[in-house]
Amino acid sequence: MNESDVTVVRIYLHEAKAHMEELLEYLHDESKVHGVTVFRGISGFGSSGKYHSSTLIDMSLDLPVVIEFFDEQEKIKSIVEYLNTKIKPGHIVYWSAKINDRMEPVE
Amino acid sequence: MNESDVTVVRIYLHEAKAHMEELLEYLHDESKVHGVTVFRGISGFGSSGKYHSSTLIDMSLDLPVVIEFFDEQEKIKSIVEYLNTKIKPGHIVYWSAKINDRMEPVE
Amino acid sequence: MNESDVTVVRIYLHEAKAHMEELLEYLHDESKVHGVTVFRGISGFGSSGKYHSSTLIDMSLDLPVVIEFFDEQEKIKSIVEYLNTKIKPGHIVYWSAKINDRMEPVE
Repeated sequence: MNESDVTVVRIYLHEAKAHMEELLEYLHDESKVHGVTVFRGISGFGSSGKYHSSTLIDMSLDLPVVIEFFDEQEKIKSIVEYLNTKIKPGHIVYWSAKINDRMEPVE
Repeated sequence: MNESDVTVVRIYLHEAKAHMEELLEYLHDESKVHGVTVFRGISGFGSSGKYHSSTLIDMSLDLPVVIEFFDEQEKIKSIVEYLNTKIKPGHIVYWSAKINDRMEPVE
Repeated sequence: MNESDVTVVRIYLHEAKAHMEELLEYLHDESKVHGVTVFRGISGFGSSGKYHSSTLIDMSLDLPVVIEFFDEQEKIKSIVEYLNTKIKPGHIVYWSAKINDRMEPVE
């Protein structure tokens, strides 16, 4: 089976974070990584213990959000280094994985 | 602690993809893997840069969807090989993980 | 780049499981792990083959839920050992990852 090495990245934020737009713009316009997906959690809390959750009635709360993407290891390395200057420590998690077949380079 | 090796798989698609139904049927009826879960992202884009996103008003868009599951490494290997014939390169990501206790074989 | 080792944990449950509240209380009040996020899937099934899914009209079903968090490897090890006494085999998946910069210890 054809497979390649990738790094998967998950960035843990909240919807209310002002820089989420900026981050997505960077990922879309500059980094051009693969598989960018934004997931909204229904509840969450970090080390502060402060809850972020939703009900059907109140869908506009400050919910936890995870931005996920993946790409070649070297490319991700430099992207994480850049993001590290924008996002405070402890919010970017990444690990090695395999991907089916060979990815086409993004022009 | 009892733990076993598994492989976690995430398949990156869009809701509008006609073969999502077919994939889920295969996973449900034939592969019988563990923990199949379909997650809908609230926004996303791939290497094409084309956005897929939602608002509260417009919930029927072509949103990014991730199908996740896990199982024993050998079993996943043959499943990914099969899926590889159905899904174009660069959309199936998988990595090794541990699972609590020993999984019961699925009959 | 400053990075540390973490373990990422994903627990696979259903909304209707009575012990979800108890689990979240434990993670919030006692374990004090990082990045706890609850994700609701839109569809899913396990080894039993029983479907759990939603439509826009029926949002109150027994949907699949994943509780995710991460923290230092030693800390996670003891947490998974505890959770193992509460959650039946085959529902807690975890793997090694890196995190940006050094995490502050949670007091």
